[in-house]
Amino acid sequence: MKEKLTIVKVGGKIVEEEESLARLLADFAAIDGHKLLVHGGGRSATRIAAQLGIESQMVNGRRITDAEMLKVVTMVYGGLVNKSIVAGLQAKGVNALGLTGADMNVIRSVKRPVKDVDYGFVGDVEKVDAALLGDLIARGIVPVMAPLTHDGDGHMLNTNADTIAGETAKALAAQFDVTLMYCFEKKGVLSDENDDDSVIPHIDRKRFEALVADGTIQGGMIPKIENSLSAVEAGVSRVIITLASAIDGNSGTVIE
Amino acid sequence: MKEKLTIVKVGGKIVEEEESLARLLADFAAIDGHKLLVHGGGRSATRIAAQLGIESQMVNGRRITDAEMLKVVTMVYGGLVNKSIVAGLQAKGVNALGLTGADMNVIRSVKRPVKDVDYGFVGDVEKVDAALLGDLIARGIVPVMAPLTHDGDGHMLNTNADTIAGETAKALAAQFDVTLMYCFEKKGVLSDENDDDSVIPHIDRKRFEALVADGTIQGGMIPKIENSLSAVEAGVSRVIITLASAIDGNSGTVIE
Repeated sequence: MKEKLTIVKVGGKIVEEEESLARLLADFAAIDGHKLLVHGGGRSATRIAAQLGIESQMVNGRRITDAEMLKVVTMVYGGLVNKSIVAGLQAKGVNALGLTGADMNVIRSVKRPVKDVDYGFVGDVEKVDAALLGDLIARGIVPVMAPLTHDGDGHMLNTNADTIAGETAKALAAQFDVTLMYCFEKKGVLSDENDDDSVIPHIDRKRFEALVADGTIQGGMIPKIENSLSAVEAGVSRVIITLASAIDGNSGTVIE
Repeated sequence: MKEKLTIVKVGGKIVEEEESLARLLADFAAIDGHKLLVHGGGRSATRIAAQLGIESQMVNGRRITDAEMLKVVTMVYGGLVNKSIVAGLQAKGVNALGLTGADMNVIRSVKRPVKDVDYGFVGDVEKVDAALLGDLIARGIVPVMAPLTHDGDGHMLNTNADTIAGETAKALAAQFDVTLMYCFEKKGVLSDENDDDSVIPHIDRKRFEALVADGTIQGGMIPKIENSLSAVEAGVSRVIITLASAIDGNSGTVIE
């Protein structure tokens, strides 16, 4: 039987505020068994870029990463945010190892081709090499992954943290019984967007199609659940969408 | 017989300029066998701190690291400089892994006690845990270490890169035949400070004492060689002081 591995993805907001970070680190440290954390950091990057006189340009909610902004996100995601989390987890006895996709060549990406928009140094994940990563996890190491990858040609690439979590989960599913947890600002997928307690406890492919057909699930939630279902179809045991404060895994929407 | 491991320490100047970094990466990649790189980054930290409106305070050539400066060095050393090197080495087929002392709890330090000067968040190395690090090196991983450690209580600490290199070399000497190479702005230890070619090819404890007694070696070179001799006495096979452009190991001063 495979050993359990919990992969938690948290957005920038959680890890960038002292109080929510402290709570996250405590909750994450309390998760039983093997675990891996993927974090964002966009707000800090925007703030530090502004202090450096670099303007953050967003298109469709995504950051345009020119050469100067790439330096900022490499500093902020790979240095400031990542090492704060690593040091904080070490203080709780969690043997964290901060990683970008360049480290141990864990995630190689291709620079996103220019179509309507030139996103700049943004990576689309090409390959996750999970062999050594899986061995380290089995030995008790807890990877902490920043939303950065590399192109194999010497360049770092800014990369969506949800994608990193999803692709890493798929790659590790051969070796572990993987639960992938996306932390979210709501308690889960809601059947009524005006009722925060209307969490749909369970979604599978069939139910998803019915919920899309009747209009219950719409907008940005559709690709999120589509990606979760594709992770499950690629071997991830379950995806849970929940609040960061609920990563004990007993609430939220379970997709499997 | 132990396998060879070459540990190279380079200062900030080398890794912060595009041309010298490119040459270093090529030379370092060409080193046979296991290897590990320790880097500085002080000039970039000073520059980015200035851009952020933070003044760099130096006392006796050492940086005062207050809370704001700690954020800057964590970003710059652990993020910008470290990941540039890692991505650059990956492009040369070197399976680099960027580390601070917090990652895998490799180096734990204590915050330097305040005596005449309060250096702030500066670490004095307490313990290097080389077991897992050694295993990774044996498996082909090339660690790239930033001059940062942690206190085990959630704080990163700014830490001298020479010390990190020396202490890591000692800790890995049980497992490897370690050559520790300090890259320097001169060709080696000089017998005549006005003659750049007057490199003393070989120094041991006895010769060191004679050279200090007759005034050939003085000033800041005394603690540097003292530290090198103590590394050798702690099991490191040899220490080489040389130019960054000469890390093929066939020149410089060999201390053993």
